Amino acid sequence: MRRTLLAAALSLLVALPLQAQQPTRIGDAAMTQAVTLRERALADDTGWKVVESLTTEVGPRLAGSEADARAVEWAKAKFKALGYDKVWTEPVTFPKWERRSESARIVGAHAQALHVTALGGSPGGKVEAEVVRFESLEALEKAAPGSLAGKIAFIDYPMTRAKDGRGYGPGSRVRSGGPSAAIRAGALAYVMRSAGTDSHRNPHTGITRFDDGLKPIPSAALSLPDADQLARLVALGQVKIALDLDCGWNGEYTSQNVIGEITGRSKPDDVVVIGGHLDSWDLGTGAIDDGAGVAIGMAAGHLIGTLPKGQRPARTIRVVAFANEEQGLYGGRAYAQKHAADLRKHQLGAESDFGAGRIYAFAAKTPDYAKEAVARIAQALAPLGIEHREDGEGCGPDLSPFNAIGMACAGLSQDGTDYFDLHHTPDDTLDKIDPKALAQNVAAYTVFAFLAADAQGDFGSAPKPATP
Amino acid sequence: MRRTLLAAALSLLVALPLQAQQPTRIGDAAMTQAVTLRERALADDTGWKVVESLTTEVGPRLAGSEADARAVEWAKAKFKALGYDKVWTEPVTFPKWERRSESARIVGAHAQALHVTALGGSPGGKVEAEVVRFESLEALEKAAPGSLAGKIAFIDYPMTRAKDGRGYGPGSRVRSGGPSAAIRAGALAYVMRSAGTDSHRNPHTGITRFDDGLKPIPSAALSLPDADQLARLVALGQVKIALDLDCGWNGEYTSQNVIGEITGRSKPDDVVVIGGHLDSWDLGTGAIDDGAGVAIGMAAGHLIGTLPKGQRPARTIRVVAFANEEQGLYGGRAYAQKHAADLRKHQLGAESDFGAGRIYAFAAKTPDYAKEAVARIAQALAPLGIEHREDGEGCGPDLSPFNAIGMACAGLSQDGTDYFDLHHTPDDTLDKIDPKALAQNVAAYTVFAFLAADAQGDFGSAPKPATP
Repeated sequence: MRRTLLAAALSLLVALPLQAQQPTRIGDAAMTQAVTLRERALADDTGWKVVESLTTEVGPRLAGSEADARAVEWAKAKFKALGYDKVWTEPVTFPKWERRSESARIVGAHAQALHVTALGGSPGGKVEAEVVRFESLEALEKAAPGSLAGKIAFIDYPMTRAKDGRGYGPGSRVRSGGPSAAIRAGALAYVMRSAGTDSHRNPHTGITRFDDGLKPIPSAALSLPDADQLARLVALGQVKIALDLDCGWNGEYTSQNVIGEITGRSKPDDVVVIGGHLDSWDLGTGAIDDGAGVAIGMAAGHLIGTLPKGQRPARTIRVVAFANEEQGLYGGRAYAQKHAADLRKHQLGAESDFGAGRIYAFAAKTPDYAKEAVARIAQALAPLGIEHREDGEGCGPDLSPFNAIGMACAGLSQDGTDYFDLHHTPDDTLDKIDPKALAQNVAAYTVFAFLAADAQGDFGSAPKPATP
Repeated sequence: MRRTLLAAALSLLVALPLQAQQPTRIGDAAMTQAVTLRERALADDTGWKVVESLTTEVGPRLAGSEADARAVEWAKAKFKALGYDKVWTEPVTFPKWERRSESARIVGAHAQALHVTALGGSPGGKVEAEVVRFESLEALEKAAPGSLAGKIAFIDYPMTRAKDGRGYGPGSRVRSGGPSAAIRAGALAYVMRSAGTDSHRNPHTGITRFDDGLKPIPSAALSLPDADQLARLVALGQVKIALDLDCGWNGEYTSQNVIGEITGRSKPDDVVVIGGHLDSWDLGTGAIDDGAGVAIGMAAGHLIGTLPKGQRPARTIRVVAFANEEQGLYGGRAYAQKHAADLRKHQLGAESDFGAGRIYAFAAKTPDYAKEAVARIAQALAPLGIEHREDGEGCGPDLSPFNAIGMACAGLSQDGTDYFDLHHTPDDTLDKIDPKALAQNVAAYTVFAFLAADAQGDFGSAPKPATP
């Protein structure tokens, strides 16, 4: 009863401002300017040059590694070189995980090497034991406690390919939930078929976790052909593997969110925030994850920054290169915490962190009074082959903590059909990016950020009451 | 003048038997039987099961490794299990090369790992030095002696993709000729863009050689994305890499050519010889190079062997799984040497060693009297989508030494468009084989071997006078 009353009161609180609020508007002059910016962006190679520079000069940049510091310096210098008005950093502290070496091999009559990589957060260790194969996380979770004593658990779940990446939900749960399920069944170590969709000898790394109270065990991913091979050998009879991981947590590290701003014409304290994450896994050079996102944000802000001051959008464009997304959204959570008091000043946010495929859909969940402005943005995006959808997929991982407490959020959905062929593997390299598709992304973010920043009125950012 | 007389005399010697010789014929009954065998082969999965077994149970099988011995035992057992009438081995001795570990990294301001593999035959060694890039072997060959003192030579030649693999000629010359050219210019070490056509972080290994009188230097191949990365960094300024190879020659090893026969109906001492090579490089599991070739030969012989004895072809089908092709055709040369006296008893030969892509062309260089029989074989192959061509590409690497001294030879050309994406890399695994394309290969070899073995007359095998 009390809950119903409270809900009614809350819905009244939400509904009232909606009725009082003037519709948010985007004028014709802004639309004309957005078209010009869009066409310029399509013909511009700034995005490509930025991602080429980051992936070549810094290369892989595991959070907490010496390359993390080089990436921060790179980002500061790149923002300045691109003419950003303000450039600064905000500290982000996290535990540091190190990968030193890793190997696995079949022992015995079918002796051969397996291509394996430690999951982020795994402890090191050497284990030689028989493998027990499971077809899914659910199957391993059903294993009786102690039933895997002295064994290595192997989940051989095949992730499915999809344009919107929806196969990654179940795929990544095998990575995050598998180790704890293996420990509960008594296993000495855990291996999984990588959460990926390719057919190469590339294991896919990624963060895992261990439930409280469990003693972590060495946990690793096999490439898909290696998982196939192990499954065939298990089907032939008892198979032992020797897993040797040297990795683990090693103290704390403080990295930085690196932020650049193109100052707004008339409301410089209000911001539209875009960006990507600066860290990458260590196996590839972090081109699609997420050099592309950083480059798209930096290039979009840069293009808006080249407008004569009087033609700048009303609000500021803020581009954030987030620290340590990969190991738990540390940069995004630090940003949300630091800027919570300024939440209403965040007009709208969108992060690019799903590769460099073409954007095919745009969506923003906003109050009714902003729907007309959202439709205007969609109208300017449509010639890029971008469809307006009612329901989006959120605003990217690093803005999700801020969105959770009330920041208005838009989503520009990229075609991720091939994303999980490369994601978290050595193959995440520059050559996998199509420069034309990247330019389409830059054009979309430029149009989006410009129009959102120039709109008369807001998109509904407002602190949410904390969930009870 | 004397040369002209000699040539005239020789042409007379060659021409005389041609005029006297009856045309080689293939009868209608044999053609009917070939059609039946072809359709059975297309519906049969023996080839797939054989290559699955070899690549799974033995896995990688570098010549001279402990897996080489396992592969020999596997081949003997498999021939027996497939019902071959005779199974035996013939020794093949060669120097043993071992790969123990290998790594490379950019050092300094752009520090990052590079994916590298030692070339077969390379010595080990640790070298940290500046890289000098060349666009081709020819460019490195022009470098002045001593001009690369204290440096690492890097050839960044991009191999081209082609259905018939013709890009591999210049591509593999960079591998075989680069190290000696680097030594002549004074280099401490040699790295090359892999001779491959893919875009993965897989370096392509393969044998190299050092010219007499030169002191070998550590020599390695970079994956194509790593070569791109190194080229970009070199373009930005001085770049040092640290190369660390632990590999080298280590004594001699004696492996075996493994041979299985389906005995002929009426001329059991005459043979049609088919097969592939049993060894592989160590990085992949040797599925397309050359598990497929072994499987195609074994399955074709097996299918012919299932015929009732009275319906067997006149001659014997001999399937050879050759030892150590990769490091210098050791198995093929041993076979030619051992069987030189029986050369005329070799009716016709063809080896499969270009992957598992569909066969699209058939050719046999024979005397005129055998052309009608060749046309009959082509006629039986045509429904498989195989075109009859006048000029073939030889009969595969391992039969080339025997062909050079006079064995008649046919070629069944496979579509190798994707072959050099996988060749000599970790990605040469079972999943890269299309079972239907493999069955088409088996059908083609079955038809070819059956008809060649049953022909009335020969295809021109005769000892060649040694080239002066």
